[in-house]
Amino acid sequence: MPLRCPVEEQRFVLEHVARIHELTNDHDIVDAVLEGAAQYAEGEIEPLNRIGDTVGAKWSPEGVAMPKGFHEAYRLFVEGGWGTISAPEEAGGQGLPLTLGAAVMEDLNAANLAFALCPMLTMGAIEAIGAHGSDEQKRDYLPRIVSGEWPATMNLTEPQAGSDVGALRTKAVPNGDGSYAITGSKIYITYGEHDLADNIIHLVLARTPDAPAGTRGISLFLVPKVLPDGRRNDLRCASIEHKLGIHASPTCTMAFGDEGGATGWLIGPEHGGMRAMFTMMNNARLNVGLQGVGIAEAATQRAVAYALGRVQSARAGAASREAVAIHEHPDVRRMLLRMKALTMGARALAYYAFGQIDRGHRGDKLAAMRGDVLTPLVKAWGTDVGCEVASIGIQVHGGMGFVEETGAAQHLRDARIAPIYEGTNGIQAADLVGRKLGLDGGLAFDGLIADIRAEIEDPALAALADAVELVATTLRAAEQDDRLAGSYPFLTMCSVLTAGWLLERQARVATGDTPFLRAKRAAAGYFLAVVVPEALGLAAGAEAGAKLLYSVEAEALA
Amino acid sequence: MPLRCPVEEQRFVLEHVARIHELTNDHDIVDAVLEGAAQYAEGEIEPLNRIGDTVGAKWSPEGVAMPKGFHEAYRLFVEGGWGTISAPEEAGGQGLPLTLGAAVMEDLNAANLAFALCPMLTMGAIEAIGAHGSDEQKRDYLPRIVSGEWPATMNLTEPQAGSDVGALRTKAVPNGDGSYAITGSKIYITYGEHDLADNIIHLVLARTPDAPAGTRGISLFLVPKVLPDGRRNDLRCASIEHKLGIHASPTCTMAFGDEGGATGWLIGPEHGGMRAMFTMMNNARLNVGLQGVGIAEAATQRAVAYALGRVQSARAGAASREAVAIHEHPDVRRMLLRMKALTMGARALAYYAFGQIDRGHRGDKLAAMRGDVLTPLVKAWGTDVGCEVASIGIQVHGGMGFVEETGAAQHLRDARIAPIYEGTNGIQAADLVGRKLGLDGGLAFDGLIADIRAEIEDPALAALADAVELVATTLRAAEQDDRLAGSYPFLTMCSVLTAGWLLERQARVATGDTPFLRAKRAAAGYFLAVVVPEALGLAAGAEAGAKLLYSVEAEALA
Repeated sequence: MPLRCPVEEQRFVLEHVARIHELTNDHDIVDAVLEGAAQYAEGEIEPLNRIGDTVGAKWSPEGVAMPKGFHEAYRLFVEGGWGTISAPEEAGGQGLPLTLGAAVMEDLNAANLAFALCPMLTMGAIEAIGAHGSDEQKRDYLPRIVSGEWPATMNLTEPQAGSDVGALRTKAVPNGDGSYAITGSKIYITYGEHDLADNIIHLVLARTPDAPAGTRGISLFLVPKVLPDGRRNDLRCASIEHKLGIHASPTCTMAFGDEGGATGWLIGPEHGGMRAMFTMMNNARLNVGLQGVGIAEAATQRAVAYALGRVQSARAGAASREAVAIHEHPDVRRMLLRMKALTMGARALAYYAFGQIDRGHRGDKLAAMRGDVLTPLVKAWGTDVGCEVASIGIQVHGGMGFVEETGAAQHLRDARIAPIYEGTNGIQAADLVGRKLGLDGGLAFDGLIADIRAEIEDPALAALADAVELVATTLRAAEQDDRLAGSYPFLTMCSVLTAGWLLERQARVATGDTPFLRAKRAAAGYFLAVVVPEALGLAAGAEAGAKLLYSVEAEALA
Repeated sequence: MPLRCPVEEQRFVLEHVARIHELTNDHDIVDAVLEGAAQYAEGEIEPLNRIGDTVGAKWSPEGVAMPKGFHEAYRLFVEGGWGTISAPEEAGGQGLPLTLGAAVMEDLNAANLAFALCPMLTMGAIEAIGAHGSDEQKRDYLPRIVSGEWPATMNLTEPQAGSDVGALRTKAVPNGDGSYAITGSKIYITYGEHDLADNIIHLVLARTPDAPAGTRGISLFLVPKVLPDGRRNDLRCASIEHKLGIHASPTCTMAFGDEGGATGWLIGPEHGGMRAMFTMMNNARLNVGLQGVGIAEAATQRAVAYALGRVQSARAGAASREAVAIHEHPDVRRMLLRMKALTMGARALAYYAFGQIDRGHRGDKLAAMRGDVLTPLVKAWGTDVGCEVASIGIQVHGGMGFVEETGAAQHLRDARIAPIYEGTNGIQAADLVGRKLGLDGGLAFDGLIADIRAEIEDPALAALADAVELVATTLRAAEQDDRLAGSYPFLTMCSVLTAGWLLERQARVATGDTPFLRAKRAAAGYFLAVVVPEALGLAAGAEAGAKLLYSVEAEALA
């Protein structure tokens, strides 16, 4: 089933949700980018999605070989400048809004999540070098990273240091010439090694000698696979993981310094690694939320196409005993509309958040903080939506959904990583109640709710806003454990409230009689009538506190 | 991580939920069966779960080769008499309650779902031949099927006839000697071919010449792989599917009659196939619900074991900055308790339903009808729980959950078939609102709710009972489409209500201070405090009607 990127929907959300006209005057460029990205995603990388899954990336001692077709597709990615959309102009980027770049990333995610991870990781490195790199680094590396000629990676995780980055042990010892010798082992390094490009720029977190313990002693290093003098650096991919999904994305164990030390250079100040890492990860979190949106879009399209073509059983209660296409059966229709509503909701939330970040970059501090508040919502709820929609997509296919050839199962397998990486969704929820709820003395969160309240009309949505405010008050006053115990359902409530607000806004202006506008109204209607009341049902869990959780030792739960 | 079958929990639920003492006087046999089954499942078939997944069943023109170890495990299954527990004594069974057999099946499912499917399908055939077969068939086939020497299959589905069984085209033409010549093709035939046994007894739905269209023209046939005279019958496995999970369970495309016709014999009267099929499928539906329970149990144990061993990050807000095992973090603890609560809830619901079926077999007509009402709940909600718990299990593992070696991902891949086969969960929901809600003039459903109301004390549970009654009233008065549109959320509400009732009952008697009883109280407490209010949030969707679903053409949803 060929993917059709939702250009009309994207344009509509960019206009009414992100209000992109406030971010760029050039409407032609918005259309050109959306249409060009759709063409590239549909034509070049979606056709590689299944071969990527079945063949996967292949490790050998010489390196990692990508599946057939990926090299040409990546060459076209670089040639088309698809990585440059929202990169800064001084680094060879086009300087367009991040929100527009987000729409492009959504298309790549929908078409081929495993492929899209390569540019996604690269984007994080561009941010980090742009914000913290030296002039030399910006000059020597940034243009080639921006163009995609040299893709980049994020080397954070070690076996004992996952969510707890501060526990990392990789060492960086000064060489005396301004460079450092890096030794250590990293795991789960996405695109840590591959044959799509001549060089790979690794951003590596490590400890300098005598660095303080924990996160305060971490520094960030630029460690290229090929050194400026053309020699191979002392680093290699020791193995790749055998994973549930995204098989074409090589998840590498990286060995630095087997022969004495990989050569690297500090990015930003010594011990400033965590700040640089957060620069990388923040937008990466939003981008992972977009992975949920992209997968949900692809899964929805596939399920609708199947439901239109699969004829099975007469409609219950109908006069005719003729079998009908299954989309006519109410419960199948319910599944399709649910998929659509959740996808549209997650997209609206993500684009809105990117719009706030863009405004923040233009100096609007309140918008920047709102972007911070929304980031855990986009990441966690967006990826939960990706998994739920992909799973419903399997169900719509019936027995065919369980057969890999259909492609429906791959969406779920691919989607399932997104709630885990770039900070698990549990960590997002902790970030929401631990930091974002109190940001700017609570004004950042409260301002969002106030804006929502000022605009919404639907009574269920208003009831959810009431509930969110009540829970927020409870959690702010609660002990740490109780706050964390309620964090996950609270995050879902906040996400559904925000998405519901943005869908209601869209439905209000979706007044015409085109298929797209009818779908928009129906999806928004379903979201308000069904998904919003479901979120209201989460309030009890959000306020339940931690006592019950600790009323039994974990050993007894096995 | 070695599985430990939950014998203490099973005994507790058999006693307080299924009240098995009313079904058998022999308490020693209950203990002996639970302990023996646990030993067999843990020792013999769980160790094959991963090789089954990675190697899978292998097709060749000569047949299907099962992975190494499966043959010996199956030999021990037959030797141990594990298929005979609740089979009738006159057929060589032990005549014990179905409910006890259910506990055994749960263990097999938890240990190795792909393996357990072979006996599960066989059980359906035992029921069908027992209820509808001739004396000769019962004499010649039943004892060997019951013992497991000859496993059996259900051949229903054809490419154009999935949920709509009435659309099947396989033909059965009388040979003149009492036998029939069967020709046609079947798909998705679980264990349709394998090398675990010398013979396989296929139960095949087909049409006799001049049979009426639709389901009324279907007959059931017994079609052995090896004929009584020792010749191979004219049937073969043409291919097996490449699936998301249960890789060791061969899902076969079966070709009957390539060389003129496979020889088969009618089971029951001509055109009586649908009745016989429902006999097979009814308990199969309950057994699929048990698959959800088994997978949830295995996934929970694996997640708890991981969370006990994985050390990461200090506890937020704690004085000590020492990293702790992750089960100490509130949101991880929440995930573990949720897994436990859902698993216990699904088990209670399933065992209770089996207990009703057992009472029905002993002549209690009201109990039989209650079993009918509960069947779609056990199948649909039990399998939804299996998927949700398996998915949370991945999340608890963090990045390791996405790596196949951990085993967490396999649980989700295996679990995902269960909401699909033996009647999709959507069809279960349609069965609930279409037939079960009106069974015995509505008294069967209303009686269940009245019994629940008479016993429950928790206010949230009482509120859910109110909501279920209101929605039931609405749906009974509603048009067909509106009823079906609300069927799925309504089914979930009914399931959570019934499970909540049975968990509250257990918590009431779980008064001691052992780890098991503490876990029981905590899980029941979580279920009532969190899961029950969530189900209340589904009422809006259950009452939303179909209008919104049809306000847009399906084409516009792609």
